Amino acid sequence: MPDKLTDIIEELALANRILAHEGVLDAFGHVSVRHPTDPGRYLLSRSRSPLLIEPDDILELTLDSQPVRPPKVQLYAERVIHGCIFAARPDVMAVVHHHAPAIMPFAIAGKPVIPVFHLGGTMGEEAPFWDQHDEFGDTNLLVVKPEEGQSLARALGKHSAVMMNRHGATVVGGSLKEVVSRAIFMCQNADYQLRAMTLGTPQPLYKGEVKLAGLLSLLPNVVTRTWEYWSMRLAASGAMPPRKSGTKAARRPVPKTSRVTPRERRKGRRR
Amino acid sequence: MPDKLTDIIEELALANRILAHEGVLDAFGHVSVRHPTDPGRYLLSRSRSPLLIEPDDILELTLDSQPVRPPKVQLYAERVIHGCIFAARPDVMAVVHHHAPAIMPFAIAGKPVIPVFHLGGTMGEEAPFWDQHDEFGDTNLLVVKPEEGQSLARALGKHSAVMMNRHGATVVGGSLKEVVSRAIFMCQNADYQLRAMTLGTPQPLYKGEVKLAGLLSLLPNVVTRTWEYWSMRLAASGAMPPRKSGTKAARRPVPKTSRVTPRERRKGRRR
Amino acid sequence: MPDKLTDIIEELALANRILAHEGVLDAFGHVSVRHPTDPGRYLLSRSRSPLLIEPDDILELTLDSQPVRPPKVQLYAERVIHGCIFAARPDVMAVVHHHAPAIMPFAIAGKPVIPVFHLGGTMGEEAPFWDQHDEFGDTNLLVVKPEEGQSLARALGKHSAVMMNRHGATVVGGSLKEVVSRAIFMCQNADYQLRAMTLGTPQPLYKGEVKLAGLLSLLPNVVTRTWEYWSMRLAASGAMPPRKSGTKAARRPVPKTSRVTPRERRKGRRR
Amino acid sequence: MPDKLTDIIEELALANRILAHEGVLDAFGHVSVRHPTDPGRYLLSRSRSPLLIEPDDILELTLDSQPVRPPKVQLYAERVIHGCIFAARPDVMAVVHHHAPAIMPFAIAGKPVIPVFHLGGTMGEEAPFWDQHDEFGDTNLLVVKPEEGQSLARALGKHSAVMMNRHGATVVGGSLKEVVSRAIFMCQNADYQLRAMTLGTPQPLYKGEVKLAGLLSLLPNVVTRTWEYWSMRLAASGAMPPRKSGTKAARRPVPKTSRVTPRERRKGRRR
Repeated sequence: MPDKLTDIIEELALANRILAHEGVLDAFGHVSVRHPTDPGRYLLSRSRSPLLIEPDDILELTLDSQPVRPPKVQLYAERVIHGCIFAARPDVMAVVHHHAPAIMPFAIAGKPVIPVFHLGGTMGEEAPFWDQHDEFGDTNLLVVKPEEGQSLARALGKHSAVMMNRHGATVVGGSLKEVVSRAIFMCQNADYQLRAMTLGTPQPLYKGEVKLAGLLSLLPNVVTRTWEYWSMRLAASGAMPPRKSGTKAARRPVPKTSRVTPRERRKGRRR
Repeated sequence: MPDKLTDIIEELALANRILAHEGVLDAFGHVSVRHPTDPGRYLLSRSRSPLLIEPDDILELTLDSQPVRPPKVQLYAERVIHGCIFAARPDVMAVVHHHAPAIMPFAIAGKPVIPVFHLGGTMGEEAPFWDQHDEFGDTNLLVVKPEEGQSLARALGKHSAVMMNRHGATVVGGSLKEVVSRAIFMCQNADYQLRAMTLGTPQPLYKGEVKLAGLLSLLPNVVTRTWEYWSMRLAASGAMPPRKSGTKAARRPVPKTSRVTPRERRKGRRR
Repeated sequence: MPDKLTDIIEELALANRILAHEGVLDAFGHVSVRHPTDPGRYLLSRSRSPLLIEPDDILELTLDSQPVRPPKVQLYAERVIHGCIFAARPDVMAVVHHHAPAIMPFAIAGKPVIPVFHLGGTMGEEAPFWDQHDEFGDTNLLVVKPEEGQSLARALGKHSAVMMNRHGATVVGGSLKEVVSRAIFMCQNADYQLRAMTLGTPQPLYKGEVKLAGLLSLLPNVVTRTWEYWSMRLAASGAMPPRKSGTKAARRPVPKTSRVTPRERRKGRRR
Repeated sequence: MPDKLTDIIEELALANRILAHEGVLDAFGHVSVRHPTDPGRYLLSRSRSPLLIEPDDILELTLDSQPVRPPKVQLYAERVIHGCIFAARPDVMAVVHHHAPAIMPFAIAGKPVIPVFHLGGTMGEEAPFWDQHDEFGDTNLLVVKPEEGQSLARALGKHSAVMMNRHGATVVGGSLKEVVSRAIFMCQNADYQLRAMTLGTPQPLYKGEVKLAGLLSLLPNVVTRTWEYWSMRLAASGAMPPRKSGTKAARRPVPKTSRVTPRERRKGRRR
């Protein structure tokens, strides 16, 4: 029996690993998704590096970022980032918080990432900055208190992303696949923008182009292509997540990688 | 029985994967080749990321970019890039459209890639720029309408490549192997040119050198060496494409990689 | 029977390989740890590249960097770096000396690495510089004489790291895991700081933030997460060190990687 | 029976692959070694990408770069680089010609690589530049005529390396292992030097330091460590060259990689 919650939990584990494999997340950072049937809850892994997350690591939390069931595991210190944004933005279905190398120079120099190529349009107009020090003074820069999370959510406003000075960025989307695409393309955009500055002044997209190109990553054509590509790259690295335990292993087929096994090579069935 | 069409279809799948493995194509971008016996048709994959393309994904299209047989699969939105160039340039046998990280800073800053080392000569003199906004105003920057494709082909003119502002580049060649070499060496050239700017002013090739060095990648000596190298790198990553279904699997031998299998290592047949 | 010395020797071999796999050490560089029960001794590998070090390569040395047992193997020429720092700094339990690509531009330009993001706080305030030429004139830049090591230790003072002009850096910590984290995060910080300079002027952490963020990498939550992540990345690359010979192989379990074996894939036990 | 010629041929195949794996050579570039018993001959591969070269590809050439035995294979067009240098420099035992990404910005901007860290001392004082256009006008920039090779050898003079404008570099050494180390460390030096320019003005080694540090890579301690490291990295990638055919396969043992086979993991013999 297909099960919406199991599906989204497995997709969330996969999203964690895709974002890690594509260089958005590393030892740190996290991605969450709103509960598929209860908008007052969201799903997030226990405290663990994203490349290692399995469906069984995923927990249910309320919008004040408390676990629904008493946890036997460590939780992310910064889970209020997710809870406060889900509370403030009913349209948001998924959140990524990260410190990707591509965006760090911008977070450190306090300079905006601006859409400079068509897929960069995914991030929407220039993302606002939030400096934790402005409101909270000296901290260890982790967003752990509810009021810190709420302040960040206010800075995000209606935008698709918010830059965090000396820390990283937080990106939101209308679905898990949308937020994964947005996070990846925003990082590509930042990388290209920075290197373009060695040559001269980057020419941003026209405002109308941002609007139109911003919808590109939602085209079924594009979603199908990118999700297959990122999944296959992950699979080829040997890091696909296991299935959720207690589910029928055969329900979702093993992704067919393009790799030829030694056995197949010997048999000559595929080149 | 050897079959020209099957051969070129398998070579096109391989070219897709080589270009992806060498960093020219990623989730996006595409490479096409003119039909070997009907110059009024060309071959292009269904909508799929290049690293994953198999011979069975390749479709025949007319020069107005319509599939010869009613397709059961999604097509690339931007296939007019290929059709319009094949129509405008009878000498062109293969086309690559890409957004390689190496050329994006130039496409974004609007600065020309110029040949700065011998293999960079492959791209010919400075490639012209085409800005979709000039003629078509706000778009999502995809080249999807025939008049957009025709405009791009006009900008390409007699050149070997055309830069596309805020989008990428399109490269053409007299054969599949030529266009693959040109796309790869133009990316290397762009990378070296950009980094040379940190040191001072890059010294471009002399005009006469561009002409002479531009023929380097067509030397049989060079084609043999590069094609073996890129194929072996792809094979070593485990990503060689399968054969076209319905063909004799044994016709083209499995490329002998330099990797030693565990079995061989145990047997001590090769070090 | 668990054994403190064997444990720390195996952890030291692992630390060597983690630092190599994460890009801090390469053919060169070394990491040491103070003897767990005798503060007058420390543990360091024989002369070997860190990625290849096995527990059986680890030697005991006195604080004047003489091997406790007559060695049958080559020793690192620069072991006085470790001995002199352990002698001067009773609080230091572990030392890394490295030439990581990320910090070399700073060691060469003589510009300080400053904490610019939360995890960069791990390095503490700006590290001092030590120029071997100031005191010792022309050398081959290796720190081999006791007085060179002592001079370096004086320059380090109470800091967590010292930059070495035209050579590299040396980083210290209160434990092996702390020094590994500090070395890795200081390199990330240097990389981000350098790239931020293309955009403008990096904004360093506030002094109070350095203090608070400097404790982040000691949080059990963080140590657990990073150590699992770095170990798993190393394991996935196939480069985990062997066990110390003569110990029960079963005592420490094989780290469960997230990779699926071909056998498991065939059996469909995990996706 | 050990055989000097077979040994050096196998070492040359290994050197080719190490230089390719470490990013000095790619589809192009070549490394040669003087014949171990006949100083009037040298050894060089047939025209092939270095990562793929096997002992059976190695040919004997005279100092005027003619093959000793009539070849059935294609030769490198640029072999006169090697022949002319071996003729002009009796002290030189090995030559590498390359277009490594690290040195290309310098070859393009016409700016000298200068030793900026201890291992960079291996390249000796600043390498001179040679511009083929000065003497030969417009060419395809390949060094193919004897007079071109002789001109390059004159520019090299007594130095350890010569930069080639808009083309690459050529590096020489007193042995195969020395030239491999020199080529690799000179590339590292170039990379660090370029990135240091983002921060300020790189501080070169003092003249006396260049002299002393220039001997570092010849220390037995260092040679042993680097050769083991580079060989193991190559072996771990699966790309070790096969043995020369017709020799006893067992003579040189298979390098013990640090990788654990699945079989060993199951047996728990090593962690």
